[in-house]
Amino acid sequence: MRAYDIIAKKRDGGELTAEEIRFFIHGFAKGKPFVNQEANALRSGDEESLDNGERHCVTDYQAAAWAMAVFLRGMTEAETAALTEAMVTSGETVDLSPIPGIKVDKHSTGGVGDTTTLILAPLVAAMGIPVAKMSGRGLGHTGGTLDKLESIPGLSIDLSREKFLAQVKDIHVAVAGQTANLVPADQKLYALRDVTATVESIPLIASSVMSKKLAAGADAILLDVKVGRGAFMKNQDDAKELARAMVAIGNRLGRRTAALLTAMEQPLGNAVGNALEVAEAIAILANRDECGFGPISADLRTVTLELAARLAWMAGKADSVEAGLHLAETTLTSGAALERFRRFVAAQGGDSRVADAPETLLPQASIRQPVRASHGGLVTALDAMAVGRAAALLGAGRQQKGDPIDPAVGVVIHKRIGDTVKAGDVLAEVFANDSRWQAAAQAVSDAYAIGPGGEEENGALAPLPLILGEVH
Amino acid sequence: MRAYDIIAKKRDGGELTAEEIRFFIHGFAKGKPFVNQEANALRSGDEESLDNGERHCVTDYQAAAWAMAVFLRGMTEAETAALTEAMVTSGETVDLSPIPGIKVDKHSTGGVGDTTTLILAPLVAAMGIPVAKMSGRGLGHTGGTLDKLESIPGLSIDLSREKFLAQVKDIHVAVAGQTANLVPADQKLYALRDVTATVESIPLIASSVMSKKLAAGADAILLDVKVGRGAFMKNQDDAKELARAMVAIGNRLGRRTAALLTAMEQPLGNAVGNALEVAEAIAILANRDECGFGPISADLRTVTLELAARLAWMAGKADSVEAGLHLAETTLTSGAALERFRRFVAAQGGDSRVADAPETLLPQASIRQPVRASHGGLVTALDAMAVGRAAALLGAGRQQKGDPIDPAVGVVIHKRIGDTVKAGDVLAEVFANDSRWQAAAQAVSDAYAIGPGGEEENGALAPLPLILGEVH
Repeated sequence: MRAYDIIAKKRDGGELTAEEIRFFIHGFAKGKPFVNQEANALRSGDEESLDNGERHCVTDYQAAAWAMAVFLRGMTEAETAALTEAMVTSGETVDLSPIPGIKVDKHSTGGVGDTTTLILAPLVAAMGIPVAKMSGRGLGHTGGTLDKLESIPGLSIDLSREKFLAQVKDIHVAVAGQTANLVPADQKLYALRDVTATVESIPLIASSVMSKKLAAGADAILLDVKVGRGAFMKNQDDAKELARAMVAIGNRLGRRTAALLTAMEQPLGNAVGNALEVAEAIAILANRDECGFGPISADLRTVTLELAARLAWMAGKADSVEAGLHLAETTLTSGAALERFRRFVAAQGGDSRVADAPETLLPQASIRQPVRASHGGLVTALDAMAVGRAAALLGAGRQQKGDPIDPAVGVVIHKRIGDTVKAGDVLAEVFANDSRWQAAAQAVSDAYAIGPGGEEENGALAPLPLILGEVH
Repeated sequence: MRAYDIIAKKRDGGELTAEEIRFFIHGFAKGKPFVNQEANALRSGDEESLDNGERHCVTDYQAAAWAMAVFLRGMTEAETAALTEAMVTSGETVDLSPIPGIKVDKHSTGGVGDTTTLILAPLVAAMGIPVAKMSGRGLGHTGGTLDKLESIPGLSIDLSREKFLAQVKDIHVAVAGQTANLVPADQKLYALRDVTATVESIPLIASSVMSKKLAAGADAILLDVKVGRGAFMKNQDDAKELARAMVAIGNRLGRRTAALLTAMEQPLGNAVGNALEVAEAIAILANRDECGFGPISADLRTVTLELAARLAWMAGKADSVEAGLHLAETTLTSGAALERFRRFVAAQGGDSRVADAPETLLPQASIRQPVRASHGGLVTALDAMAVGRAAALLGAGRQQKGDPIDPAVGVVIHKRIGDTVKAGDVLAEVFANDSRWQAAAQAVSDAYAIGPGGEEENGALAPLPLILGEVH
C-alpha cells in the first residue's frame, strides 16, 4: 500500500477502504512531526522520534494534498466513520466501563456566550447520569470550559485518572484537563488543515469532533450544532449536514449519538467572559433572574434544559424527550442541580461558597463601562461574533496556544434582539482591566442594530427560534 | 497577501491574479527546501539557506494543497500563463538576443524511439535557422538527447555560455547541458507533484514544459505532443487540450508557438537505445535505408520532416508549411543536413567520422539477440511502452537521477505494425551487455501482437496516421 495511490484514488473520486484510511492516518500520525517541530527537534538534537517516524511515513505534504482532495471530493459515511476510527486508534482512549450506567457527553461546535456545559454537567449528574468530561483548552473568544472553571478559587482540573473515575462514580460529574495522549492524528491533521485551507470540510470536521468524543469513552454523545452569524456554520443546511455526518459516525461506531441545531445569532448567554459566564451559570442553577453582573439569559436556560432533556432520554432516565424536559426542569427548580454544582466544585478543590456568593468570590474587573443606546427603537440585530471579538480584545480569549487569559474581563449583554430601548439605555457593559475597554465598548456598540419602532409602534419582533432542528 | 488565502481561492474555483500566483510560486521557490533536504541541512549545520527562506515562505504542504486544488479546479489560460511566467522569473533565463535571426526550439512530450532532435537540429540549422538547445538529462526508457550525443566519441555537452552562443552564431546549432539555474520553482514543484499525485494536470504540465522552453530563450517554439499507448497522453482529446494550453501560454507570453500531435503507438524510430538511436539518425541524415544495426524507420523520417517544415515556416524561411516541407526535403536529400551534423559534432569536440562509420565508432553491445515470430501473420500491435521498458531493463535509461546508463544497449525493431511475417522471421533484436537480454527479449516478444491474415488473405492494414492534429 502506498500513500501516493491513496491520494490519487481520492483525487479521482474513489471511495477509500477502511484499511487504506487507517494506513494513511496512522502513517501520518507516526510519521515525522510537522516541519517546524522537526526543525526544532533537530536543532535540539532530539532526533529519536523523527528517525522512528521514517519507517512508514506519510509526509505532511502528502497529507495536505489528500486533505484537499477530501475537501473537494467529499467522503461517504463509511469513509468518514473509518477516518474517525483511524484517528481514535492513533492514540490512547479512556475506558469508562468501571463506572456503572450510561455515561454521557455533550459537545458544542462553538458559539459566543455558550455557557451550557457549566449548568448542564451538574444538572445531568443530579438526574443520576454520569458525566465524565475531558476537555482541551482550545482557542476562542473566551477560554474553554476548563478556563471558566479555573476562575473559581481553588478549583483544579488536574485530576489523576483514578481520582477522575472515582469522582464520576461518587457524584456523577468530573471535568478534567486532557492528560492522556488522545487522538494524536487529529491534533496533527487539524494543525495541517489550519494552514492549508482545508478546515471547512464536513467529513473532516465531523471526524475531528467525533474522534475526540469517541476517545473520551462516553456511551451516549449529544452534539449541540450552533447555527448563525456567531457560529462556524452560518446556515441551517450546512449545520444539518454536519449534524448528520457526526450522528452517522457515532451510530456506525456503536455509540448512541444525537444532535440538536441551536441558534447562534446573538450570544446565547448574556455573559461573555470566563468568570462572568460562571456567575451567569450559577444564577441559572440557583433559579435567579439575574446575577451580580446583570440579567440572566432565558435563552441560555432554555437551550440547557433542551439539551438535558435529550441526555435524560438517551441515558434511559426518561421515556421521551418531553419526559426528559420535565425531569430536567424539576431537577433544576428543586435546587438539586445547584447542590450538585457545590459538591462538584468542592470535590475538585474549589471554594463551594462560590455558588452562593459569586460576586465576591470570583475575580473582578477593575473597570465596568456601560455601552448606551444612541437612539431609541427596537434591537433588530446583535452580532454574536462582534461581541465575541470584543471579549477577546479585552483578554478573555487566546490568540495562540499557551497565551494567558484574564478571567475577570468580558462583556455582559443587557438588551437582546427584540428588546425595545430608549436613547441612553444601557445596552451592555464592558468589564475590563485596562484601556482596551474603549475599543471594546465601541465594538459592542457597533454590534447592535437598533431599528425604528418598538412596542408602541409596530409591536415587538417575534422571538427568534432557538431550536432549529434535530438529528437522531 | 497570504498563501492561505490563495489556496482557499483556488479551492473554491476562483481565478487567481498574476500577482497572487507570483507571490505563491516565488514564495515556494525561495522558501524552505523540501523536508528531507531541510533535515539534512540541519543535521549538517548548514542552516543559512533555511533561515533566509523563512522570511516569505510558502511551505511544501501549502504548495501540495494548492497543487491538488489546481488539479481538481483547473486554471484559466490567463492563470496558466501567469504561472508559467512566475516559474520563469523564479530563476535565471538565457538571453539569445546576441544571435541574429529567429531562434527556434522543439520539445517532445516524450515517447519511445523518439530520435527526432538528433536529425532535426542539424537539418534545421542547415536551413539557416539558429537552434540553441539547452537540455536536462531527465529520466526515461532511454537517456535524453544529451546522453545520446555523449555516445559519440569525444563529444562534450559542457559548453561555456560564450562558447555556446558563439557556436550557434557560427554553425546555427549547439546542444548543451543546462548549466544555469533555470526555473528552480518548476524543479521544486515537479518534485512535490511527483509524490502528491498531482502530476497529470493539464495546466501544471503545460506550465512546467513551457517555463523551461521560455527560460531557454527561443523566439519560436514547436511542441511535438505524442499521443498513444507509448506516450504520457493516451488519447487525442487530452493531447489536444495539452497542446492548446501550451500554445496559449507561448503566444500570451510573446513567443510564436505551435504544436503538432504525432502518433506514439509503436516506437517512432526503429532504434530504442542511445548509440542505436544515433546510428539511425545518422542513416536518415545520410539518406540511407538502413543503418548497420537494421532498417531505418520511415515514420521517424516523416515526423522529422513535418517538424522541420513547421520550424521553417515559423522562422520565416518558408511562406507555408508545404513550402517548408519542400525546403526540408531538399536540404535533407542534398546532404547539407549530414554535413551540418559533421560540423556540429566536430564543434563540440566529437569525432565527426562517426557520420560515415557509425557502426565502428559508436559503442557496441557484446550480445545481439534476435526475437523471432512464433507464428506467421500480420503485426497488429507493437506496444511502445513495453519496448521502452525492455530497453530500460537492459540499462539504456535511468531509474533515478544520477544513475549511469549503458550507451550501447537497447532494442532494434525490424517489423512494424502492418508488416506481414512468417514463423521464424526476426521481429526485433536485443542489444545487451549481460544476461538481462533474456528478460528483455521476452518482453519485446510479448510487446508484439500478430493476428491472422497477411497480404495474401485480407490485405495489409491501412498505414497508421502519423500526424494526428495541429495547434497554432
